[in-house]
Amino acid sequence: MSKSLEQSALVESSWGKLYGVGAGPGDPELITVKGLKILQRSPLVTFPSGRNGKPGIAQQIISTWLRPDQKTLALDFPYIQDDEALQQAWDKAATQVLQYLQQGQDVCFVSEGDVSFYSTFSYLAHSVQNLSSGVPDNLTCSGSISSSGPEIITVPGICSPLTAAAMAGHPLTLRQQKLVVLPALYDAAALSQLMDFADVVVLMKIGKEYQKIWSILREKNCLEQSYIVERASWPEQKIYRDLGDHPALSLDYFSLWIIPVTESPPPFGNLTV
Amino acid sequence: MSKSLEQSALVESSWGKLYGVGAGPGDPELITVKGLKILQRSPLVTFPSGRNGKPGIAQQIISTWLRPDQKTLALDFPYIQDDEALQQAWDKAATQVLQYLQQGQDVCFVSEGDVSFYSTFSYLAHSVQNLSSGVPDNLTCSGSISSSGPEIITVPGICSPLTAAAMAGHPLTLRQQKLVVLPALYDAAALSQLMDFADVVVLMKIGKEYQKIWSILREKNCLEQSYIVERASWPEQKIYRDLGDHPALSLDYFSLWIIPVTESPPPFGNLTV
Repeated sequence: MSKSLEQSALVESSWGKLYGVGAGPGDPELITVKGLKILQRSPLVTFPSGRNGKPGIAQQIISTWLRPDQKTLALDFPYIQDDEALQQAWDKAATQVLQYLQQGQDVCFVSEGDVSFYSTFSYLAHSVQNLSSGVPDNLTCSGSISSSGPEIITVPGICSPLTAAAMAGHPLTLRQQKLVVLPALYDAAALSQLMDFADVVVLMKIGKEYQKIWSILREKNCLEQSYIVERASWPEQKIYRDLGDHPALSLDYFSLWIIPVTESPPPFGNLTV
Repeated sequence: MSKSLEQSALVESSWGKLYGVGAGPGDPELITVKGLKILQRSPLVTFPSGRNGKPGIAQQIISTWLRPDQKTLALDFPYIQDDEALQQAWDKAATQVLQYLQQGQDVCFVSEGDVSFYSTFSYLAHSVQNLSSGVPDNLTCSGSISSSGPEIITVPGICSPLTAAAMAGHPLTLRQQKLVVLPALYDAAALSQLMDFADVVVLMKIGKEYQKIWSILREKNCLEQSYIVERASWPEQKIYRDLGDHPALSLDYFSLWIIPVTESPPPFGNLTV
């Protein structure tokens, strides 16, 4: 081996790559071709663990695509609000993943929807980066410090607002419409005020706030054109329209409320994918 | 044939199905598996025509997937503001598509990005629906009127904000962050005001407004963390950071400005897909 090649080998990273792949909203075929290729060639596929002993959402979505020889690893991302405990959980998950990356093995992490849009992948990737920064690169026998860490590659996925609109046969946005996405309702007054500005509002989590939101929409005359999509693209998907007739509804956690504030055409599609 | 089967045949639609498929942002592998399947089994694939004799964006994206025996049809969606002329163009495109649908042939329309998110598909689908409503269904020899028209099926695609964030290695949104998407800048004062509310703002079209936006972001101390992605996921993709150093930039039409208004972590990824 020539000297220059030897030197080049010394600086080349031995880290495996961390892929973040959006599994899409639920229908297994709504993953991208690129995402599926990466998923299927990865020896190790990781995803957020489920609750109560059930497989997690992303795991359910991709299960039909996994080969029997692929290793899987469920990572614990607890549903808690405490910042310190969350950071500990992300670091623990990152440490598990780093064990493989450090051995030069690629790891594919999948989460439901998109991996940049309110996704656990963001936390995992940051912890992996933070914990690997300054870790000796085990190929470089000289013990030189790699400050770069593993390469992290993000492959986008279909997020739920796009899916909900498609399933309901509505355009989500048209022409010059301003879109606002709210991950939760914090403040009824703020939502009301916001509707003077936005053309379309998407509420990502409804939960126990249904009646509060319903009252605001009634007051703003937006109930009629609004719709809710529960579990978009899953076999158990439900679409709720004519919300004026539903002052109370009990909805799944994965339910989106789409509120066309300004004029919107009637739906053109149907519920088939 | 029994009487009941005969009757059932009479009410069954003879229309072909209209599929709207999001081709994704540019990288051909960022189409969904479902979208690709529908695209490849469609005898007729349509898309918006390009400008100056060049193939359109969606056509460029899907060209690698087309089989030589598939028929293609470019539909004219002019870049104009006049409502009446636009409606005429949409109706003309719909009439072209309806010729095939009425013969029972499925048609696949593809557009770049997603088909519900600022997409020409919404206009085509509405014109198809409006023009087909009340058209006699040519299977029902009794001449009964089908008021339903062809089935319209929407398959979502990866939209550009998700892609831009992925390519830049940033989360687009985290936890409780409020996202605002503006298709264009109308009013500098409104953008400034909006930034008091939003955690993340995406400006979809920048065009000649670069300097105006740049000044607002500087005033709001948001230049440093903002970034621009030009032609996300295309081979010619460019990412602009450190925008404080760029008071003037000449950008492609397909450029997105992503503005994290509130605290945002540093990027974890790189530019590889």
